[in-house]
Amino acid sequence: MKTVRIQTDQREQILDITRQVREAVEKNGWGSGLLALFCPHTTAAISINENADPDVKRDILYHLKKTIPQSPEFRHFEDNADAHIKSVLTGFSLVVIVEKGEIRLGRWQGLYFCEFDGPKDREIWLKWLPEAGG
Amino acid sequence: MKTVRIQTDQREQILDITRQVREAVEKNGWGSGLLALFCPHTTAAISINENADPDVKRDILYHLKKTIPQSPEFRHFEDNADAHIKSVLTGFSLVVIVEKGEIRLGRWQGLYFCEFDGPKDREIWLKWLPEAGG
Amino acid sequence: MKTVRIQTDQREQILDITRQVREAVEKNGWGSGLLALFCPHTTAAISINENADPDVKRDILYHLKKTIPQSPEFRHFEDNADAHIKSVLTGFSLVVIVEKGEIRLGRWQGLYFCEFDGPKDREIWLKWLPEAGG
Repeated sequence: MKTVRIQTDQREQILDITRQVREAVEKNGWGSGLLALFCPHTTAAISINENADPDVKRDILYHLKKTIPQSPEFRHFEDNADAHIKSVLTGFSLVVIVEKGEIRLGRWQGLYFCEFDGPKDREIWLKWLPEAGG
Repeated sequence: MKTVRIQTDQREQILDITRQVREAVEKNGWGSGLLALFCPHTTAAISINENADPDVKRDILYHLKKTIPQSPEFRHFEDNADAHIKSVLTGFSLVVIVEKGEIRLGRWQGLYFCEFDGPKDREIWLKWLPEAGG
Repeated sequence: MKTVRIQTDQREQILDITRQVREAVEKNGWGSGLLALFCPHTTAAISINENADPDVKRDILYHLKKTIPQSPEFRHFEDNADAHIKSVLTGFSLVVIVEKGEIRLGRWQGLYFCEFDGPKDREIWLKWLPEAGG
């Protein structure tokens, strides 16, 4: 298992971590197989979306904040129930395909780290499972 | 990695792609192991749900459209921010279990391709990882 | 493939199933690799979140119930369209990392079984894919 460290600097923030994950694939010499990405937090998540127009990230965060506000209706004592809910809806586990050392993503896709309760020191975990000979 | 091509014909549409994925398993002679399904788009997603009453698909799309409308509050210039958000919440990566050549799904489950910005030519990617001897 | 049986006793309920999954890993002697968890239902889901304050579970269910109510606008004849939608947004497939017989979760993470249309007899399926020598 390998760890990729991520530093967030806002409460709510989407970071494109494609480069860091590509570097881990290269550095570890992973060939062809499945790469599992896992987010070990409860108020941050991982997903995939557009790597071009930064307004897509803004719109995703804007929508989540509007529909899942910090609210006195929530009871969790740390006052970040909204971040837990956003994380559950976004997800903690992704599996991506790697072929001959290349992460296969769609043309417009980037890997997203989604911070919902930062700024914090975060990390994601990578586990590599090669195909036979990969 | 294998590709399954999908043609959508509406802006928002859920297609049951179980048959196409079963055919890929059969055609490639995959036995026992894990099958990773990956959606390489940013305005479409993959999920699982009921394969019987078509109103379930309608209700899912109805709810998403109502709660995530195309809105001038979004800034993404292509005017399809709603489709990006729906995709993030639905998900891009699924792993299903295959035993002796059979995809194991629950009795009422079908594999869903979820189009949120069609009609478009789409695809999903399949990667097979057999268990030892599978 | 192994099955973990789960009994729910409310319509909407989040159960921490970390212990049962850990026991399956131990009992089956699984070492290092990837463990796929699959929820074979269409009105229940699996996720991950805080294992400490029970109010987090309450807040997640409260938010989902408030934003996805049982509503006459839904057409599905079984009157549980809300449960189907909540399940799609939460997800059916999770992949967790196992190292030397230990499921690797973040410090505050527990594995969640999310019931949205109980009480029911439910199950999740586990499939183990070891790394070479794992």
